[in-house]
Amino acid sequence: MDRAIALGSAARGTTAPNPNVGCVIVKDGEVVGEGATAPGGRPHAEAVALGQARENVKGATLYTTLEPCAHESERGPTCATIIPEAGIRKVVAAIVDPDTRTAGKGLAMLREAGVEVVEGVGAEDAEASLEGFLMRIRHGRPFVTLKLALSIDGKIALPSGESKWITGEDARAHVHVVRSQADMILVGRGTLVADTPSLDVRLPGLEDRSPRRAVLTGGNGEEGWEILSSPEAIHDLENVNDLMVEGGSGAATAFLKADLVDRILIYRAPILIGEGKSSVGYIGLDQIADAHGRWRAGTPRVLGIDRLEVYERVREE
Amino acid sequence: MDRAIALGSAARGTTAPNPNVGCVIVKDGEVVGEGATAPGGRPHAEAVALGQARENVKGATLYTTLEPCAHESERGPTCATIIPEAGIRKVVAAIVDPDTRTAGKGLAMLREAGVEVVEGVGAEDAEASLEGFLMRIRHGRPFVTLKLALSIDGKIALPSGESKWITGEDARAHVHVVRSQADMILVGRGTLVADTPSLDVRLPGLEDRSPRRAVLTGGNGEEGWEILSSPEAIHDLENVNDLMVEGGSGAATAFLKADLVDRILIYRAPILIGEGKSSVGYIGLDQIADAHGRWRAGTPRVLGIDRLEVYERVREE
Repeated sequence: MDRAIALGSAARGTTAPNPNVGCVIVKDGEVVGEGATAPGGRPHAEAVALGQARENVKGATLYTTLEPCAHESERGPTCATIIPEAGIRKVVAAIVDPDTRTAGKGLAMLREAGVEVVEGVGAEDAEASLEGFLMRIRHGRPFVTLKLALSIDGKIALPSGESKWITGEDARAHVHVVRSQADMILVGRGTLVADTPSLDVRLPGLEDRSPRRAVLTGGNGEEGWEILSSPEAIHDLENVNDLMVEGGSGAATAFLKADLVDRILIYRAPILIGEGKSSVGYIGLDQIADAHGRWRAGTPRVLGIDRLEVYERVREE
Repeated sequence: MDRAIALGSAARGTTAPNPNVGCVIVKDGEVVGEGATAPGGRPHAEAVALGQARENVKGATLYTTLEPCAHESERGPTCATIIPEAGIRKVVAAIVDPDTRTAGKGLAMLREAGVEVVEGVGAEDAEASLEGFLMRIRHGRPFVTLKLALSIDGKIALPSGESKWITGEDARAHVHVVRSQADMILVGRGTLVADTPSLDVRLPGLEDRSPRRAVLTGGNGEEGWEILSSPEAIHDLENVNDLMVEGGSGAATAFLKADLVDRILIYRAPILIGEGKSSVGYIGLDQIADAHGRWRAGTPRVLGIDRLEVYERVREE
């Protein structure tokens, strides 16, 4: 299942509105087929893995990060149909698909067809790998990642606006990997004008993974940029499982104030800036006590001379 | 030697102007005596360890974090004299004492008295444990530690000034331990007035380790508080190996601008404050490139829900 989750994670940012599922087929202790949801969402991971395994799947076990689909589509038969037909004997699914068109029906169809089904294996990691898709299905909006490159003292630029470079090459390369896992990247109007950021993915082999680009503005956009008039407008976005908010301070503040940030990535450089531009403005906080309990810190990761701090929003479901 | 360094480190903040040396005497593979420089600086660690070992030191090996002293004092004989007299056969010293009154003379006296001498064992860790004393001897000023309790976005308070509490109990308890290792604690005038901080050490067993208190001000102080008119005035301080700058933003900024901070301790809470008081003001930085290469980040340490980040000033010697 770890392998299936890794395959699914690697496809994040390319499959929306479909989930970035990973799938591995094992027969007699050997992997005979594996795959992830293809770019654009089809074929599904199970079909990719079955196609790779060809005739070699009689009696095999199929591991998938998400329950196989049970809903008919013009683009192909349901996975819950083709899996038994191919001769798979057992399916291990990490989580049930919350999409109401499947929602347990896929696993029921498999059982009816005589396939042994195991649920819940690797559920936590699978949830994390699919959090963009799951957020969209459950809450009708993308999973929002806010990225900030900060000094020790939390500044994003000098008073002049100069911000190149706070972080080093390793951190900036990591940002490109994160971008490649987003369906859409958003900046504020000020950042668009000041930095004219290309915001594409400049990593060897990942050039074709550059996500859609959006600007947060009440006014006009620019060619090649979609417009979001407010953070809440993410509820109307189509085909976006994962949204990455790249800055600047205005966009970060707007999304935080709207409580529409699910994860913060802080690329922390070992420098002090002192007087300069703060990363975040007024986010509706009026007493320190209210700031607590909202973010859970992960283990920091060293990126060259910098460090990546990850904070996940703690929400009562 | 690790044990000697630990003993010496534990005495930091209590021995100025003398060094916080640690000493362990080993005979036939067993520790027969150990100790650190006593509060106030006398007796020296070697004398403490010899006193504990009593007659049991003939042929033993003495480990010490700093070269035994060679300079006569009204307060007792030199360690370089009493060590051979006691019958110690071998001395392992981590580093040579830069105090010109000793500066290699101690080790020379030991060798002349027939004692085998080994230098340099554990030198790096011993240097770190003695950095307050070494800074004072080499540069005529205390080693300066700046402590800041910050949010993710580098704020120390809300616009109202409210700052209680950014960090949790574990982090605040750790601050007390760090205080106990300083000879003097300093705050800015604004912090003294606003917070009337007691700045003492409130840890069981360490209550008597509360350091001297100072305020950075061009004006008047307050009873029980010494006055520093500027960061540079630390060159005139007597009996201070380690100075801890506790805040607020004004004091932190003044010491950073004067380049008189050797170590920064960031107690980082997993909270966002947004609009609020920045930790550091203008420190003389006019381009981002100049900010780099000044601070080396250590490995962060988890303190409850918070994290301690340590940054050491990188200086060309």
